[in-house]
Amino acid sequence: MDGYSGTSLRIDLTSGQVKRESIPDEDLVTYIGGKGLGTKTLYKELESGIDPLSPKNKLILTVGPFTATIIPTVSRHGLFFKSPLTGVYGESYSGGFFAPEVKKAGYEMIIIEGKAPKPTYISITDDLVELKDAQHFWGLDSHETEDGVKKEVGDKAVRVSAIGPGGEKLVRFACISNDYGRQAGRGGAGAVMGSKNLKALAVRGTKKTKVHDEEKLRSYVTELLQKLPKELPLRNVGTPVMVDLENKLGTFPTHYWHKGFFKDHTAINAEAMKKIVVRNKACFNCPIACGKLVSVTDGKYAGTEVEGPEYETIYAFGGLCEIADIKAIAKANDLCDRLGIDTMETGNMIALAMEACEVGKMKMDPKIKFGDTDAAIDMIYKIGKCEGPAGTLLSQGVRKAAALLDMPEIAIHVKGQSPAGYDARGLKGMGLGYAVGPAGASHLRSNIYAPESRGMIDRFATEGKPAFLKNLEDRMAILDSAICCHFGRDLFFTWNDLPKLFEFITGRPTTETELHEKANAIITNARRFGTREGISRKDDMLPRRFMEEPLPEGGSQGSVVKKEELDKMLDEYYALRGWTAEGKPPPD
Amino acid sequence: MDGYSGTSLRIDLTSGQVKRESIPDEDLVTYIGGKGLGTKTLYKELESGIDPLSPKNKLILTVGPFTATIIPTVSRHGLFFKSPLTGVYGESYSGGFFAPEVKKAGYEMIIIEGKAPKPTYISITDDLVELKDAQHFWGLDSHETEDGVKKEVGDKAVRVSAIGPGGEKLVRFACISNDYGRQAGRGGAGAVMGSKNLKALAVRGTKKTKVHDEEKLRSYVTELLQKLPKELPLRNVGTPVMVDLENKLGTFPTHYWHKGFFKDHTAINAEAMKKIVVRNKACFNCPIACGKLVSVTDGKYAGTEVEGPEYETIYAFGGLCEIADIKAIAKANDLCDRLGIDTMETGNMIALAMEACEVGKMKMDPKIKFGDTDAAIDMIYKIGKCEGPAGTLLSQGVRKAAALLDMPEIAIHVKGQSPAGYDARGLKGMGLGYAVGPAGASHLRSNIYAPESRGMIDRFATEGKPAFLKNLEDRMAILDSAICCHFGRDLFFTWNDLPKLFEFITGRPTTETELHEKANAIITNARRFGTREGISRKDDMLPRRFMEEPLPEGGSQGSVVKKEELDKMLDEYYALRGWTAEGKPPPD
Repeated sequence: MDGYSGTSLRIDLTSGQVKRESIPDEDLVTYIGGKGLGTKTLYKELESGIDPLSPKNKLILTVGPFTATIIPTVSRHGLFFKSPLTGVYGESYSGGFFAPEVKKAGYEMIIIEGKAPKPTYISITDDLVELKDAQHFWGLDSHETEDGVKKEVGDKAVRVSAIGPGGEKLVRFACISNDYGRQAGRGGAGAVMGSKNLKALAVRGTKKTKVHDEEKLRSYVTELLQKLPKELPLRNVGTPVMVDLENKLGTFPTHYWHKGFFKDHTAINAEAMKKIVVRNKACFNCPIACGKLVSVTDGKYAGTEVEGPEYETIYAFGGLCEIADIKAIAKANDLCDRLGIDTMETGNMIALAMEACEVGKMKMDPKIKFGDTDAAIDMIYKIGKCEGPAGTLLSQGVRKAAALLDMPEIAIHVKGQSPAGYDARGLKGMGLGYAVGPAGASHLRSNIYAPESRGMIDRFATEGKPAFLKNLEDRMAILDSAICCHFGRDLFFTWNDLPKLFEFITGRPTTETELHEKANAIITNARRFGTREGISRKDDMLPRRFMEEPLPEGGSQGSVVKKEELDKMLDEYYALRGWTAEGKPPPD
Repeated sequence: MDGYSGTSLRIDLTSGQVKRESIPDEDLVTYIGGKGLGTKTLYKELESGIDPLSPKNKLILTVGPFTATIIPTVSRHGLFFKSPLTGVYGESYSGGFFAPEVKKAGYEMIIIEGKAPKPTYISITDDLVELKDAQHFWGLDSHETEDGVKKEVGDKAVRVSAIGPGGEKLVRFACISNDYGRQAGRGGAGAVMGSKNLKALAVRGTKKTKVHDEEKLRSYVTELLQKLPKELPLRNVGTPVMVDLENKLGTFPTHYWHKGFFKDHTAINAEAMKKIVVRNKACFNCPIACGKLVSVTDGKYAGTEVEGPEYETIYAFGGLCEIADIKAIAKANDLCDRLGIDTMETGNMIALAMEACEVGKMKMDPKIKFGDTDAAIDMIYKIGKCEGPAGTLLSQGVRKAAALLDMPEIAIHVKGQSPAGYDARGLKGMGLGYAVGPAGASHLRSNIYAPESRGMIDRFATEGKPAFLKNLEDRMAILDSAICCHFGRDLFFTWNDLPKLFEFITGRPTTETELHEKANAIITNARRFGTREGISRKDDMLPRRFMEEPLPEGGSQGSVVKKEELDKMLDEYYALRGWTAEGKPPPD
């Protein structure tokens, strides 16, 4: 292809060997890049049945054909690995400024294998790849590590992805941070890094991204930008705009998933947030700027400065733990970021502990109670550093912790990952999305919560949802392979735009139909990875509470996702994907 | 109910008798108003098998609970009748300033029956209802009639709905005009008026609309308006914004439905339109202002001033007839408006004549050819006044004219009504929407062309489309009953907003689920009307060309709606609506 070809960088941490490999053109045509390429490589290269925290796991980092072009909102990189949290397929994405450096350094993919004999960081400047000693960084939090590595590399333009103590301690939901406020949060990629003695990656690139037809791309992007509405809710208040909406719908998860309505929502909503926002924070070449830098200047948490909290962090600490204080949530956010642990999973674990104490499944003195901010903040430290019995237990993730506490029926997860802040009982398409998620309950593989929550489609209906979900999943799989930010999905990346953008960049004409086929192949590869690890229809299941305990009050009162509703949706979904009634994909 | 009760005005033109009737509260609860009430009344009161142009037909005009409240974009009134064009259920809506006057005069519904012994107009001022001689208006065009009636009534604030020569001459697709630029265009409501010797309705009201909780409504509406994006494409350029989009997709109907791509689109698109737009024209209390007043100041059509052309007019004359001149289309638009005939159906009929001449089915000397502007303009006069053999023939509507020309297989219609400017071959959900339309091929009962065209859902897919269509149809049925403008659908009338707006106005709490049930009941009543006239699955069929002749070029090249695709969608759609596999609704 004229405009798009690719090099992969393979780094074996055990031997210290570094290799550059050409990615076969047909892989780039079939799998695009990003998720497509990462998933295909992971499936092909990983042995089945391995321990995710063993040297046999790999951490695959990809960018895509759109990265570091003039297209807006394409600042994301993806990570693919066997997940220490779920034991199956793991994927996670982060924005900021890291992806363009990887691309400009000349790589579509970085495959990290083995385990370094001692704490190490990787420094990449274009063709120069070095493994460097990181013993003096070990134990530092993620921000300190970013600072330290940048200083040591000595190039102000270098971008750093790093783990904090959470990753070092192998917390099953440790994240990887970059640009101080951006995280590849889900699935425990940080623990995979930690298990490899890898503290950080520092990357700097100076090459130009190849684009087949710069002229056409520029004029198309100009056109798209001209259509951009002047008022964007994500720019105005960021993702916390969802708090009031979900709460109104009765789908704002509260009191560890017992309720869908938080009476104190005004203490944690967008309005509350506005009072502590200092300024917007945008990723590379992003006109949306959903990120919000907040600063707490008074009270107990004075001095807290953090990018966030995002809606998902607010739901996990605010709703689930009933912490009615946006400043405390900002503090919790900052702590998680510095410790390098996923805010969503951390909030879920603390709320689970609150519930376990409430029902007597967990003995702590004093008990950790819903709404107890100090105890929650303290528990974040314990989880991030695996301290004490409670911290160690909760760092194991929801499924394992619930099993150890003898409360598996109470734990809310799919395949071991906690859901996002959208209760499936009032958003039934989201329920199907959670159930079939290859990496567990994720809202990001389809974003179907958005049209359901905004009243564009009937949120309680199940008819037609499998096809609607599949269509969105397909589009998001393409976005995750290109790689584009999901927040640009209706601005720059509709089915009308995508074929054109691909053609201008790669020189290869494509169609919506062809992109659907590619998306299905990509999603099916992720499924194949799961199937090889034992995943089948039985695992595409919602937590018992979603199916049997109706929401007690609010806008979704009385609703559940009935088993028969889920079964029917699964039947249809599998058929649409070309999988068997047991959810098994066709042979490779 | 506290906030909403209703009076119906019954006017028997044969006897001159006028009655005021209370609408049963349970009808308003079950059927809301607008379409719900109109359809129910039409179904209940009309004898089956009658001639639509006989005195036994009724013309039912309704407004709804939202009319003349502070909610934006609720300026519409609906008309319900047996359609002279299709012979089955007819419905048509118009915006402007007429509906609020009907509401303020104290009426939810006006039922017009019988036939006046001589040309008559109805004058309503609150409780005062008078039948007045209209012999001196007979023969005048719709604008002149509006002028004349206003002057005669002598109240500057009176609003007038009137027919032009087309309605008088019983053109099967004659429309009813109000406010000079707004038409209830589809289905031939104007011919029903003409058949009743009714030239116009003049209405003036001074009462205040009852609202249950004005405080809450005001604050909710304020909130909605604050969320209104500053940039609205419909405000900027109006509906012609769709020309380039549909043309890109290859779904812009061209050369009487042979093609989906018009090479000269830049001569008739939004940019071309901008050159003749003088200013925006909004309906009552509408912040969108999609209407565009245009003025042609040079060339052959200098002096033309008209509200429009809308996208549908541009497609019908520009694409179908291949008239590559926005000024000529403005002229055609103005002529149709003054003559009181539907621009969409008129454009279709002229393009059909062009095709008939091309294939030798119609003998004219000289032939009327695609792209021949003068001949097209001339033909509009002939159709509107039923002049000569061609005018008389084409005024019969597409199904009858095609049968008389011995080309039924070539005519593009569903149940006798021509489709809108969205070729179903590249928008398959729209195909299903056309097929099941109770009044024939209409884009307005679901607006599914919009998410399909904008790339939100896969436009070539058929999986999941029945449920998606049903959901949109349900929402539009509620909007048509409230009555709200469809262009407010994603701004003010999502499923989240509707229950609240109804509660604030009527005082009766409702839910999304309940609204779906009401919508289904309303849509099923329209179906029952059709069933009683002989409509069944066989009529829910697309034109042969949509199913067998692939589009020859452009963005939908090679695509058709296969018979088996349509059949599968119909099966699913009927099941979702609770109808039999033959499309028969359950007994009343």
